Amino acid sequence: MKSISISTEKAVALLEAKKYSSLRIILNAMEPADIAEFMEEVPKEQHPVVFRILPKELAADVFVEMDPDQQELLISGFSDSELREVLDEMYLDDTVDIIEEMPANVIERILKNSTPDMRKVINEVLKYPKNSAGSIMTTEYVSLKEDMTVAQAFEIIRKVAIDKETIYTCYVTDAKRCLLGLISAKTLLISPLDAVIGDIMDSNFVYVSTLDDQEDVAKAIEKYDLLAIPVVDNEQRLLGIVTVDDAIDVMQNEAEEDFAVMAAVTPTEKPYLKTSPFELWKARIPWLLLLMISATFTGMIISSFEDALAVIPALTAFIPMLMDTGGNSGSQASVTVIRGISLGEIEFRDIGKVIWKELRTALFCAVTLAVVNFGKIILVDGYLLNNPAITGNLMVPLAICVTLAVTVIAAKMIGCILPILAKKLGFDPAVMASPFITTLVDAVSLLVYFQIAKILLHC
Amino acid sequence: MKSISISTEKAVALLEAKKYSSLRIILNAMEPADIAEFMEEVPKEQHPVVFRILPKELAADVFVEMDPDQQELLISGFSDSELREVLDEMYLDDTVDIIEEMPANVIERILKNSTPDMRKVINEVLKYPKNSAGSIMTTEYVSLKEDMTVAQAFEIIRKVAIDKETIYTCYVTDAKRCLLGLISAKTLLISPLDAVIGDIMDSNFVYVSTLDDQEDVAKAIEKYDLLAIPVVDNEQRLLGIVTVDDAIDVMQNEAEEDFAVMAAVTPTEKPYLKTSPFELWKARIPWLLLLMISATFTGMIISSFEDALAVIPALTAFIPMLMDTGGNSGSQASVTVIRGISLGEIEFRDIGKVIWKELRTALFCAVTLAVVNFGKIILVDGYLLNNPAITGNLMVPLAICVTLAVTVIAAKMIGCILPILAKKLGFDPAVMASPFITTLVDAVSLLVYFQIAKILLHC
Repeated sequence: MKSISISTEKAVALLEAKKYSSLRIILNAMEPADIAEFMEEVPKEQHPVVFRILPKELAADVFVEMDPDQQELLISGFSDSELREVLDEMYLDDTVDIIEEMPANVIERILKNSTPDMRKVINEVLKYPKNSAGSIMTTEYVSLKEDMTVAQAFEIIRKVAIDKETIYTCYVTDAKRCLLGLISAKTLLISPLDAVIGDIMDSNFVYVSTLDDQEDVAKAIEKYDLLAIPVVDNEQRLLGIVTVDDAIDVMQNEAEEDFAVMAAVTPTEKPYLKTSPFELWKARIPWLLLLMISATFTGMIISSFEDALAVIPALTAFIPMLMDTGGNSGSQASVTVIRGISLGEIEFRDIGKVIWKELRTALFCAVTLAVVNFGKIILVDGYLLNNPAITGNLMVPLAICVTLAVTVIAAKMIGCILPILAKKLGFDPAVMASPFITTLVDAVSLLVYFQIAKILLHC
Repeated sequence: MKSISISTEKAVALLEAKKYSSLRIILNAMEPADIAEFMEEVPKEQHPVVFRILPKELAADVFVEMDPDQQELLISGFSDSELREVLDEMYLDDTVDIIEEMPANVIERILKNSTPDMRKVINEVLKYPKNSAGSIMTTEYVSLKEDMTVAQAFEIIRKVAIDKETIYTCYVTDAKRCLLGLISAKTLLISPLDAVIGDIMDSNFVYVSTLDDQEDVAKAIEKYDLLAIPVVDNEQRLLGIVTVDDAIDVMQNEAEEDFAVMAAVTPTEKPYLKTSPFELWKARIPWLLLLMISATFTGMIISSFEDALAVIPALTAFIPMLMDTGGNSGSQASVTVIRGISLGEIEFRDIGKVIWKELRTALFCAVTLAVVNFGKIILVDGYLLNNPAITGNLMVPLAICVTLAVTVIAAKMIGCILPILAKKLGFDPAVMASPFITTLVDAVSLLVYFQIAKILLHC
């Protein structure tokens, strides 16, 4: 990816040389997201200096792109009038996003410096539960009336465009603010100027409710290829819109959360390089402790079988292979099913189909693995490594391979069923991912191993 | 998420009752993506019937949303003139997407029924390597000239809008098709009709080259909150654009690939419920075999220590706990680092920072786990389960806990370094995820365990 924007190094050099007017020219040609990255290279005490160089509108755009701690620092350096200027230029949903990350005293200053109208809207949006459509919507959309002509619509758009997050979809509402239809800027542009909005608007449209989950909002935007989706209340009144750029952020965050949970880490929104070791420890240690303690069971199973292992010590050597193959088989199934649930492809009613599919897959895998492993044990462990315990008694490799097959099947069953059940019970299915399934599969595989050994080897 | 669109059940009932005119009305009010879902409930032999009910434009939109095998089936049922109609209505990037999934004979029919102009463009786009910006771009954008007025620009937009994937960003090019600037429909709408494009266009813009990776294209669209990004060749000539909806698809596919690879599954693009057990087996078995065979090493390590395990059998019981905790610690680090790399937060030059951060995190985790585990072994395994091997000799729990601490630190180091090295060497860092790291960590933890046992327990 290339961009015409000038490299940040040049900007840093100009700042150090205090060549502010050249710096201003260079920054003006850069994208807000790139300037925010440049700010990270700048010592914190110089942030206000750089910020004051930028034109008002660009300054606000850069501010939105910065990290919460940098934003907090900048706000504390702002005079009240500077803060008001930035707030004035910002879109409302961005203001709300920032407020949600700030400590109480900063929130108070922001609200104090907002206009009464803005304050009212901010407070409304803040009322919606975290991760709901209401909490991520913006109230800055273009609304039109049914009886307007296209020419009138253009007049309105021209007047309000600057302050609206998007003008490419306009919303047609009645006197009670109920949503009647949508009209795209494209339709407006290709329609005659005297056409009536009510006749050309699209009254079949997709919408979400304020309390819908933000993940579902993002999914709808993706599924229907939308640039924005309207958010309505119970009486179908239009309260706001969610735009595609915010939907992308939601999707990214949700995917990151799934990755974190699957690796047994508490999700955090901070970039890795900015997270302290103590914060990483806090996100990781509860799961490690939980999983370590739960491994007590596998220990108990092995202890109870100590005498038999003493008689045929060769059995011990295959414990890691059985546990790992079981764990891998299980997480293959669970991760696949968890993503299927996340993407809306798998629902509870599909549980029968999923089990049947995984059962057949597991059978194929189990047979392949058992046969290959039998050959490998005889050849490598038996003859190559010359282990008499194996060449002497074919029942030993047989016990290992039967256990392997049963473990793989059990692991895939556990791996596909647990996430679906978790979802049904209202938990995050991703919690049922690899580490938990590994622990459970470990216990199952050891129990199976020792039972089969007892039967085949009479130990 | 709610939509005004009528439920598919009603449509299915109408189709069964052969009430085609009512069905047409209902389908007309539905979104293309929903109609494609409805088609999945319809028996395959009825697909052409439903398809002929739909208005031309909607039919093409529905066609784009369908699965490749359904598309193939429909094409084979189309007459040449029907195929031409659908191709006519489709955007070019969608046509290319479909062609990429079809067998040779279908591709031939598609190309035969395309206009010479279309055929030329399709062939150009097909030339670009898979996953490049060129392969996902569309050539249907609005291009303007520098010396046009806003009024002239609107005239052009009005004329060509129907056939363009987006009109919200227009591209200003010179006589040689070199890209000079962008202008948004918003800017056009708020500018006076006699303003000259060259004066109001944005000449600081972000662009990509035809050979840039599609993932970087999607990242740029996300980072800069764009609706579309221009794709240029080496001479800065504008060849196409990539729109935000395609960027979303790329991001989703890349995330799914990362999930699959991390779970040791070969990524496939098919939805889970449509993948046969044999296909699932094919995607999973190579990894299971590879990881199973590599577990031979852990077996060898245990075998070589058989005699010592026979003397102090209690040591065997803690092998699963040590291996699992090591594996979990390692995958916490690796998944976090792999995602950091995927999101562009971590690069090779950060390797020192990453190691230093993980080392401190690992120390915190190691100490916590070792202390808790020591207490747990004494209390639970020693007194509660009354294991004399532990209460009799404090060196046993000590050996276990020292091993645990060393394993956790080694696991986190392996987990954070391997993905960064993999990326540097040109491999997908996700391949270095949990299963591989688990196998490596298993071997390390066993070696450490037995070394420490030797020293502390003289066995």
